[in-house]
Amino acid sequence: MKRIRLHVQTFSHRPALYRITPERWAAAAARHAELAARLDVTFDDEAGLGTAEIALGVPADRNRLADRAPRLRWLHHAMAGVDALLPFDWLPSSIVLTNNRGAHGAKAQEYMRMAYTALNLGLTRMIANQQARRWEQIFSPRLAGQTAVVVGLGDLGMAAVRAAGELGLKVIGVRRHARPCDGTERTVTFDAIDSVLPAADYVVLATPLTPETRGLLNAARLRLMKPTAGVINIARAAVADYDALVAALREGRLAGAVLDVASPEPLPADAPLWSAPNVLLTPHISCDDAADYVEVSLELWFANLARYVAHEPLAAVVDRSLGY
Amino acid sequence: MKRIRLHVQTFSHRPALYRITPERWAAAAARHAELAARLDVTFDDEAGLGTAEIALGVPADRNRLADRAPRLRWLHHAMAGVDALLPFDWLPSSIVLTNNRGAHGAKAQEYMRMAYTALNLGLTRMIANQQARRWEQIFSPRLAGQTAVVVGLGDLGMAAVRAAGELGLKVIGVRRHARPCDGTERTVTFDAIDSVLPAADYVVLATPLTPETRGLLNAARLRLMKPTAGVINIARAAVADYDALVAALREGRLAGAVLDVASPEPLPADAPLWSAPNVLLTPHISCDDAADYVEVSLELWFANLARYVAHEPLAAVVDRSLGY
Repeated sequence: MKRIRLHVQTFSHRPALYRITPERWAAAAARHAELAARLDVTFDDEAGLGTAEIALGVPADRNRLADRAPRLRWLHHAMAGVDALLPFDWLPSSIVLTNNRGAHGAKAQEYMRMAYTALNLGLTRMIANQQARRWEQIFSPRLAGQTAVVVGLGDLGMAAVRAAGELGLKVIGVRRHARPCDGTERTVTFDAIDSVLPAADYVVLATPLTPETRGLLNAARLRLMKPTAGVINIARAAVADYDALVAALREGRLAGAVLDVASPEPLPADAPLWSAPNVLLTPHISCDDAADYVEVSLELWFANLARYVAHEPLAAVVDRSLGY
Repeated sequence: MKRIRLHVQTFSHRPALYRITPERWAAAAARHAELAARLDVTFDDEAGLGTAEIALGVPADRNRLADRAPRLRWLHHAMAGVDALLPFDWLPSSIVLTNNRGAHGAKAQEYMRMAYTALNLGLTRMIANQQARRWEQIFSPRLAGQTAVVVGLGDLGMAAVRAAGELGLKVIGVRRHARPCDGTERTVTFDAIDSVLPAADYVVLATPLTPETRGLLNAARLRLMKPTAGVINIARAAVADYDALVAALREGRLAGAVLDVASPEPLPADAPLWSAPNVLLTPHISCDDAADYVEVSLELWFANLARYVAHEPLAAVVDRSLGY
């Protein structure tokens, strides 16, 4: 059997849950002993990249990658969003790029349960009241029967759809194409989003950031939403116009927002978003499980490795023209 | 058919969702026209109470009630907790007291979804960081597989059990007797609570406040909990020792608390609870639906009226010796 040179980025500079430590790698390899036995693995060093057929983790420095990794055929991005890698001018056409889609849904679903219920309860107003030491009873109706518009129906979007279903919400999907989607009453394309925003009690942004989705929820579209509605963003900040969003919240044209993403990240202390009214800001933690993010990610990767050695099409391949 | 004199308290001084307005009464009566046709209804005035056979709503002034309402046979408390009516020395033994249990579960279930997910995410720390304009990624594991100890398995407790089940939590129940309960792995009695607190990731207080439950979650018992655990209280503040709870939070012996009840209510601005670390304080809104609280309550009441006229035992009868 032909041996395979694999180069692994350990991400030692990233938060602990993302690090592909030797222990985590060994545990995953032990679960896939037959496949792992074919691998010659190097970690982190440039020389290893130079002879690698497969790389797990995109190098931070992608300058002249084609020259530095001349044998590379499969490059795996160990995160879901590839927007930080755009444009793909550094990526030779001979290399297949995959991402980590599929590793985020279970955790995202739990975050979405929090986001829907918190917005419905008016939790952001209660948090402000708690800070002001003000007892003011704010009552809310039930979530069941309300409507969520979920923008993007991939790994994260489907988590938002499942959470909505559990809570009895009706769901309208918005995505690139209008094919029917399980868990939604109907699905419209991005360019028809204006027709569904007025129905939304919650607009959930869960789409990759691409040229098509950048600025999608803009000032004009925010004006189509009900003043009782809320925005939830587990995608990328730039999918919405945050300045317009904050203005809408300040003017009472929107009830609240639960935002897990900001721009830039980390958000500087002087950013107005920190103190925008009725914003609950979480620090990009909605979709990554502290207990087993790498474990789940490596399971997906080994499943793809099995396809690779069997000469089957890889899963989670990034479409260069679509940007996700 | 014998006509029935009914006296209704409209609760015009309470928040709007609790008011039994003429419109809401008429709508409920129209849904139960045959029963309603037998009623001679008065609203609020003392003279009406004086001739009433049934009263919907306990008068704020219960002094000499037996003399003021000599014909009263059935008194309905339009709320769940009767702790504010204790002791029952004002209540003649000839009068059956019922409460509004059953009207709170659906809303409480939604609140509990928020409470479990917020505590698991470490939301209280993120809220503090947002106030401090500090970007600090706090990652969390999934809720699924964690353990909730639910104290009290009535209307509210079962809502906590259902929400836990949806989220994949294991549930241990605690109540007056140890009979098995759907949705729980096991159930222990109040006096065995020490044996289950060490297993809890979440302790949910959902029991009526009675002599048996007052101070149940005391300082010694809080010390039995894991430092990663959280407390959720949708019952009454006095079921826990809040001073001890705040001390445990300040000393890092507990991760967080979601509290919907305080003492007194409204909580005065100088109460230390407002600024206790890792407390999310909501103003007693967890279980009452803004859209249809009275509607649901009147449905339950008319169902009981049907039992009354049929000489069947009433539902939701308060046990005077148990205090709920």
